[in-house]
Amino acid sequence: MQNQPFITNLQPPYYAVIFSSIRNDVDHSAYDEMNNRLMALAQKQPGFLGVDSVRDKLGITVSYWKSPSAIKAWQTQSDHLLAKRQARTSWYKTYTIRIARVEQAHDFSAKQLP
Amino acid sequence: MQNQPFITNLQPPYYAVIFSSIRNDVDHSAYDEMNNRLMALAQKQPGFLGVDSVRDKLGITVSYWKSPSAIKAWQTQSDHLLAKRQARTSWYKTYTIRIARVEQAHDFSAKQLP
Repeated sequence: MQNQPFITNLQPPYYAVIFSSIRNDVDHSAYDEMNNRLMALAQKQPGFLGVDSVRDKLGITVSYWKSPSAIKAWQTQSDHLLAKRQARTSWYKTYTIRIARVEQAHDFSAKQLP
Repeated sequence: MQNQPFITNLQPPYYAVIFSSIRNDVDHSAYDEMNNRLMALAQKQPGFLGVDSVRDKLGITVSYWKSPSAIKAWQTQSDHLLAKRQARTSWYKTYTIRIARVEQAHDFSAKQLP
């Protein structure tokens, strides 16, 4: 279990999928439902290490993976799910997906007082 | 100039600094001021390609750079600035910095109607 509010303590090298997006003003409940299904699906994928997500107007979601092949398998699964719902391009005005190899990581936590 | 609300159209390979953080509930105006100075400093650094940032409770900032050496030079500069203000560790409850090599990127934009 992780007490941190975001993903920490992963040992490089590993991979990140950085998804930056602006949503359309349509059908947020359907979006949320599909997003929950995608996240549930990700949790079950081999090589999934975790995901962090924030949205204001801009949304940034970063998911972490053991290898490019784990990402490829996940994308095949999720594209399949999204294609069934013809969802992605109708939900987003614009998005960018990047796949990146994490080479260094440094975690900082303020000392907890007893 | 970039009309997109986030950074697009960068050609891999390039580098990303992924900064995930939770702030302390102190002195937001000083934080904002220093953050603005850091961003202004980044813009002037050789090899800086852009930055996207979102905060809800969790904050995710991703800055993009041409090379590891450009990141190193930026970190030296920004650590210097932060050290002068002894800022970072007092502003954050917890943070993680990752340096990652972007190997693939895909941009999507919904077609604009005339």
